[in-house]
Amino acid sequence: MSDFPEKITINEEGPREGFQIEAGPISTDNKVALIDALSATGLQAIQVCSFVSPRLVPGWADASDVVQRFKANPNITYTALWFNAKGIERALSFRDKLDLQGTIHVVSSEAFSISNLNRDREKNLAAMREQTSNHLQAGIAVEHLSVMAAFGCNFAGDISPAQTVEAVEDGMAIAADAGALIREIDLADTMGWANPEHIKRTVGAVRDRWPDVSIGLHLHDTRGLGIANAYAGLSVGVSSFDTTVGGLGGCPFAARPGAPGNIATEELVLLANELNVETGVDLESLITAGHLAEKIVGRPLPSAVLRGGSLPRALPTVSGHS
Amino acid sequence: MSDFPEKITINEEGPREGFQIEAGPISTDNKVALIDALSATGLQAIQVCSFVSPRLVPGWADASDVVQRFKANPNITYTALWFNAKGIERALSFRDKLDLQGTIHVVSSEAFSISNLNRDREKNLAAMREQTSNHLQAGIAVEHLSVMAAFGCNFAGDISPAQTVEAVEDGMAIAADAGALIREIDLADTMGWANPEHIKRTVGAVRDRWPDVSIGLHLHDTRGLGIANAYAGLSVGVSSFDTTVGGLGGCPFAARPGAPGNIATEELVLLANELNVETGVDLESLITAGHLAEKIVGRPLPSAVLRGGSLPRALPTVSGHS
Repeated sequence: MSDFPEKITINEEGPREGFQIEAGPISTDNKVALIDALSATGLQAIQVCSFVSPRLVPGWADASDVVQRFKANPNITYTALWFNAKGIERALSFRDKLDLQGTIHVVSSEAFSISNLNRDREKNLAAMREQTSNHLQAGIAVEHLSVMAAFGCNFAGDISPAQTVEAVEDGMAIAADAGALIREIDLADTMGWANPEHIKRTVGAVRDRWPDVSIGLHLHDTRGLGIANAYAGLSVGVSSFDTTVGGLGGCPFAARPGAPGNIATEELVLLANELNVETGVDLESLITAGHLAEKIVGRPLPSAVLRGGSLPRALPTVSGHS
Repeated sequence: MSDFPEKITINEEGPREGFQIEAGPISTDNKVALIDALSATGLQAIQVCSFVSPRLVPGWADASDVVQRFKANPNITYTALWFNAKGIERALSFRDKLDLQGTIHVVSSEAFSISNLNRDREKNLAAMREQTSNHLQAGIAVEHLSVMAAFGCNFAGDISPAQTVEAVEDGMAIAADAGALIREIDLADTMGWANPEHIKRTVGAVRDRWPDVSIGLHLHDTRGLGIANAYAGLSVGVSSFDTTVGGLGGCPFAARPGAPGNIATEELVLLANELNVETGVDLESLITAGHLAEKIVGRPLPSAVLRGGSLPRALPTVSGHS
């Protein structure tokens, strides 16, 4: 019936996703403190910043300072995000400390492409073609393909598995032309439209078409189905997930400024623990990092685990079943 | 693979669960207003109050007033909760307006029984034997059996399917001796210990033993797995769920006063809609009732749908797929 993976990789995006959306300025000290706390949890991958225009995203004006100052753990892959040549240039000066990964971003919905990227899908593909070439010239491997709005879109409604396969095909063509080998296809439920059966169908369709490429899920909890969707992904063998500590971040789209953002890392780790799927993460250390994140942003974060706690099996009062 | 039911019955417990736990006094007017708002959503069953000691639960001192004043919709089953002979007596005076259902409550965990019910399981069974007899003498049908801590317990750890089957057996014996026919077994994840696979295993074990009895789930979202657990229940054909509008309520156990309570009705309705499982509930009316509940308790409730909204398929801006 189910095909749970033995272990999964969690790509923690809390620092990057979370701090770009907060209203108040977050100090560089606090950003570094959270990254360092996350580095002590057993997480294997942490996205630490965005190299974006300080004018457009003032919250990341200090990206270079943050990268300079966090303490790198040699067992962890630290990544960053960027969108253009200027961003690549800034990232390149940290290639000793960051794992620079080139990603081809494609969009399943024309309406979302225009609204969010400010260009239609054809123009986006042209931009991705150029960026892929830039990445390869700079010696940055391009092994990731990410599909935005892979399950649905506030502007265009449901997105079918066939539409997402088509979007992946566009990106795969760019990679093939450039001589890049894609190793992972990340399906992003950017606006929280997925449901568990939809996850299974779309993962199945993408896997049928590209059986040798890993599939990752980037899930949002906009409407409360995020962890059910992660469970569905696990049940069909998905072994790579993007999450944010505490559920940091939000949904900047479609006039839903208060909506929950990414699924919370703690909730995914707890789910994986319960299903005997290995994450490498120590849940108690992660909860400590989550409480630090709440202190930094000055409000409670959506993660239920930060309220309800882990399952207290190891407490001295637990003396077995009764 | 999956065995989703065609339709489900949702038993809305927001008024009863929610208002007993709030710190501030909730006015009778507000309680009645929420029940009336819920009556307009298409819900088929609403639990409106607890007939409990005003000394122990001051929040329900006005239970009789609430029942007198809400506007009954003839298509809806309105229920109440009570725990002793005094409660039965109060409930009986409303037998024209309420559907009085006798429930046999059993507990899977000895430690929780002692801690929460203030009596061990044997004493609880004796009390249930007496209450069942009282119910039947008063002409109240006893068709429900409810298992508390059916999946795990903060005091005793995991509860196995076999332990829950054993607890159900105890309750079934009481029903059989009294000549009562149990039509539904409700499995309550009182402290949020279930995971989706555990749900499937325990539902399967109970169904194997009592194939002709319906199974209901009463799920808490203490640690963020509530909707994933509901999905697992739906996938094995469970067709009855207890929920609370907005996620009203909480977890009064084990020093977790801030933990989320029951799963939110809106999230279950949205999930069911997406899976083509009929609920009879209009999600937009339910969201309106959820916002009223937030206004009444004076704080945001946990339901993600109250933040993220429904899936805007019907908006005029949605012009099909792109």
